[in-house]
Amino acid sequence: MSSMSFKAWAEVAADLVAVAAGRAPADLVIRGGQWVNVHTREVLPDHDIAVKAGRIAYVGPHAGHCIGDGTEIIEAEGRFMIPGLCDAHMHIESGMLTPAEFARAVIPHGTTSMFTDPHEIANVLGLDGVRMMHDEAALQPINIFTQMPSCAPSAPGLETTGHEITPEDVAEAMSWPGIVGLGEMMNFPGVVAGDPKMLAEIAATQTARKTVGGHYASPDLGPAFHAYAAGGPADDHEGTQEADAIARVRQGMKAMMRLGSAWYDVESQITAVTEKGLDPRGFILCTDDCHSGTLVNDGHMNRVVRHAIDCGCDPLIALQMATINTAEHFGMERELGSIAPGRRADVILTSDLRSLPIEHVIARGVTVAKDGACLVECPHYDWPQRARGTVHLGRALGAADFEIKAPKDAARVTAKVIGVVENQAPTKALSADLPVQGGIVEGEGGVCQIALVERHRGTGGVTNAFVSGFGYEGRMAMASTVAHDSHHMIVVGTDRAMMAEAANRLSDVGGGVTFWADGAEQALVELPIAGLMSDAPAREVAAKAEALGEAMRAQGCTLNNAYMQHSLLALVVIPELRISDMGLVDVTRFEITPLFEET
Amino acid sequence: MSSMSFKAWAEVAADLVAVAAGRAPADLVIRGGQWVNVHTREVLPDHDIAVKAGRIAYVGPHAGHCIGDGTEIIEAEGRFMIPGLCDAHMHIESGMLTPAEFARAVIPHGTTSMFTDPHEIANVLGLDGVRMMHDEAALQPINIFTQMPSCAPSAPGLETTGHEITPEDVAEAMSWPGIVGLGEMMNFPGVVAGDPKMLAEIAATQTARKTVGGHYASPDLGPAFHAYAAGGPADDHEGTQEADAIARVRQGMKAMMRLGSAWYDVESQITAVTEKGLDPRGFILCTDDCHSGTLVNDGHMNRVVRHAIDCGCDPLIALQMATINTAEHFGMERELGSIAPGRRADVILTSDLRSLPIEHVIARGVTVAKDGACLVECPHYDWPQRARGTVHLGRALGAADFEIKAPKDAARVTAKVIGVVENQAPTKALSADLPVQGGIVEGEGGVCQIALVERHRGTGGVTNAFVSGFGYEGRMAMASTVAHDSHHMIVVGTDRAMMAEAANRLSDVGGGVTFWADGAEQALVELPIAGLMSDAPAREVAAKAEALGEAMRAQGCTLNNAYMQHSLLALVVIPELRISDMGLVDVTRFEITPLFEET
Repeated sequence: MSSMSFKAWAEVAADLVAVAAGRAPADLVIRGGQWVNVHTREVLPDHDIAVKAGRIAYVGPHAGHCIGDGTEIIEAEGRFMIPGLCDAHMHIESGMLTPAEFARAVIPHGTTSMFTDPHEIANVLGLDGVRMMHDEAALQPINIFTQMPSCAPSAPGLETTGHEITPEDVAEAMSWPGIVGLGEMMNFPGVVAGDPKMLAEIAATQTARKTVGGHYASPDLGPAFHAYAAGGPADDHEGTQEADAIARVRQGMKAMMRLGSAWYDVESQITAVTEKGLDPRGFILCTDDCHSGTLVNDGHMNRVVRHAIDCGCDPLIALQMATINTAEHFGMERELGSIAPGRRADVILTSDLRSLPIEHVIARGVTVAKDGACLVECPHYDWPQRARGTVHLGRALGAADFEIKAPKDAARVTAKVIGVVENQAPTKALSADLPVQGGIVEGEGGVCQIALVERHRGTGGVTNAFVSGFGYEGRMAMASTVAHDSHHMIVVGTDRAMMAEAANRLSDVGGGVTFWADGAEQALVELPIAGLMSDAPAREVAAKAEALGEAMRAQGCTLNNAYMQHSLLALVVIPELRISDMGLVDVTRFEITPLFEET
Repeated sequence: MSSMSFKAWAEVAADLVAVAAGRAPADLVIRGGQWVNVHTREVLPDHDIAVKAGRIAYVGPHAGHCIGDGTEIIEAEGRFMIPGLCDAHMHIESGMLTPAEFARAVIPHGTTSMFTDPHEIANVLGLDGVRMMHDEAALQPINIFTQMPSCAPSAPGLETTGHEITPEDVAEAMSWPGIVGLGEMMNFPGVVAGDPKMLAEIAATQTARKTVGGHYASPDLGPAFHAYAAGGPADDHEGTQEADAIARVRQGMKAMMRLGSAWYDVESQITAVTEKGLDPRGFILCTDDCHSGTLVNDGHMNRVVRHAIDCGCDPLIALQMATINTAEHFGMERELGSIAPGRRADVILTSDLRSLPIEHVIARGVTVAKDGACLVECPHYDWPQRARGTVHLGRALGAADFEIKAPKDAARVTAKVIGVVENQAPTKALSADLPVQGGIVEGEGGVCQIALVERHRGTGGVTNAFVSGFGYEGRMAMASTVAHDSHHMIVVGTDRAMMAEAANRLSDVGGGVTFWADGAEQALVELPIAGLMSDAPAREVAAKAEALGEAMRAQGCTLNNAYMQHSLLALVVIPELRISDMGLVDVTRFEITPLFEET
């Protein structure tokens, strides 16, 4: 039963009342479980749940009066009945999967509600792309809500996106049925400075009585932080320390603590509750970004809840942080987030509240997964050609496009180098003394080339620079159309001919990630939708991503999250040095900077 | 600054950001207080609050950067800074005061937000009357929100109201700016039975994303209770026992615990938190009904919070129950209920969190009360003649209108008698053997007459019956146009001529309460607006009400809340025996019943 055909509480209230009163049979009764009540924070044994029209009609002892001839019975056999898990902030694109395939991957993990910010596709396809994500989300058997992306481009004046998001776009999106608010307001310097465009987007969201997502990626908790809070963002997932979480909740924001594939911000912040004893209602769990491999191998929100419990959090409080707290934050506490009358019948059966095995998942009253297997269809949207053909290079590239010309007559140059730092998103602004051969600067000693290839408008533009830290050995090239946040194409390599071949290859397949060595492609992850997502199952995509990682390692790259490091090199909002279609960007001064050091 | 001119957060965000960032001066800074943080449940010493445009711009240590030449400074001098108190469910009419005068009475007690259900005026003037209350509320310097009354008449088929409320009325009201939801759904048997009209009112409210108020006045926590919860009410203030509160919160409803002038339901329910240790977020404090005397002499929400603390509740949790919990319930947690950026600057300074002296009250950034004195105008609405002339008897009444004819030739009769029970709302269905003189039945031995005089349509109708329990001695009569819920006129007396004079008197003054003895009026409370409210100050009304009570006591009535008992005798939704314009009502069987016992 998709969102599109799913009826509101008000539409089925008479049916729910009739079932609860015993005048009509339930569609489903879950019998004999322990009711995990996230309202009172209790576990109540020997309870039954009756479901009608996908919603909970009755929760209490003995639902016998709700059972008729056609009523399906699920025997809980004493297991815990917990509400379906909610991911309060996340980007589906990070899984390199479409919403349908992402849903199929997370349903067996007990995720039944996701609050998603399609920020990546917004950079490629604008409002049109957001609508496609929204519409595929609406087809799914679980609840996928959309936060309207706020910041495309993320760094106005420093990059050119495929499309831009305007306050008018935000206002229009607020009327769509699946929109729950504004996606993370990343332009925090803009908010602090009173940027009218950013404040207009926030205003459009507040006026629609929806939730403004925050993103304050700074350790400064002084006036700038307070000014950001005064601007309207109602949550933030960028905190990394206990003090960050506490400061946000004190200011009336929700502290979203994330455990993503590469984010580990729960353990350091949850002590605000486990040790400082603050009211936990202001704390919420989320993933932000999960790779397909994490979904296939480790889990999703169940992984986050388990981790919170492992960090010393009471299991019932941890569950509140992934259910009712999230629902309340988005004003949906009468719709989901608890097992109570009128709510969507999203229920997990588990035999242990600490290890949290996800044994049986019910979404809107339908069994959608058992013992790790998804048992339900996750329909695909019919992605149009304009979403599948987004890699516009304008022409075939050649090795010469990646030549970096030295200043006239120079024998060596001192060039700025983007320094990748293990396990960190920020880069270092390094410099290197490099040789010149035939007027062309050559990388050496761990310094290889990086290029930002324009792919939205077919300008044929290529920005060249240097990068270090990957550890590549020998001749190689890697190209990716996942290139946060404007998602042009990032090519890294030690061989200009292969760099051109890799770029052309992605143009041919419509986007993705390709790795080349020895003159041949070693691995390819096709991401034909917007150059960001595959509509293949998570397991296939994860396998290809794993093969990509192996190819990188075979060429000497031993970084954790090496692919992620690659894809973040154009993220011109995080210090210190990045690349964009407009040039090399000094992200400490927010300006374009020359490649060669002045002498 | 009234609601009508008060700007939304979105409209002033740029100003708030500028103040927080130190680029613009605040209008007001409250300096050096202890920040009572209801989000984290903490007290944080040495904090400042900066206010701009009536909203909080900054809360943190040292707001020096927010202070300019024109900034007003209030020195907190180490006192606690708590959010303005919220009354989650109440009827302004119970104070016999207009919204303006009610506001003026409660502002010195620290109440800055009220969620009001103008159920009484709805019975008299319908949607038109609700709009008048809504519009006077909008003029006030504090936040008075309106819950659209749901049940006029309360008991369809058993009484005739001045006007009726329809689902179409509810749908229309949902678009008014001050409407926050549906007032208490008193027709719980209707909801349980699936009454389409009641469900349509709930649906209109849910569709508008507003809050459905509940009223489940039954100790039955079985399927009927569950069916009521499945129907959509999101709160309930009719619980009286701990089990009631727990059951409601478990089902995802909010348990509103009330301490009104005559309701004492906090002590018996708050043990769910103080002893059972349930998550307190689902529990809310309210008054429901406060008489003007209570407001003048005892307080308002400050009295409720103090009482909760006296019952063993942690002061910070008690404050949450009167601030953030209430705001969250109505989806207004980003607007009020805490001291945090963007919220209305509603702040109380108090030097003790347990005894809670209300020393300084700030509403929307303006000092509205200090040390018990209201320092702000509470503007009156220009009540039109149709609201001031609502007592339509059709003709002058005479003693003969109150004669109860005996069955032919009877010397004595056995009549049903409404038995008033001390300190309880339910009555007893009694019977008495009464003498007949000249064909007319006479009360005796504590049994006096009661009449329901039709006053909405001028039909001239008078329903006569008997009542006992007031203890009246000698010849007297008392009449009131406050006559829950349909608010005709209730006349009780031992002298038919004086009963007629009392009724005619109220017709002359446009409604109120009058007490007669010895052939003369002993006390009068004029309630010219809808026959329910005075636009005089609370102190004057309370003094007149006190004089009324003295007159009743002088005539032998020693009941607690004697006036209230009088005004509830037509409340045909509470057992066992009541009177209405349609006759004597058996409220155990919900049917009109003959006055005389069948022999």
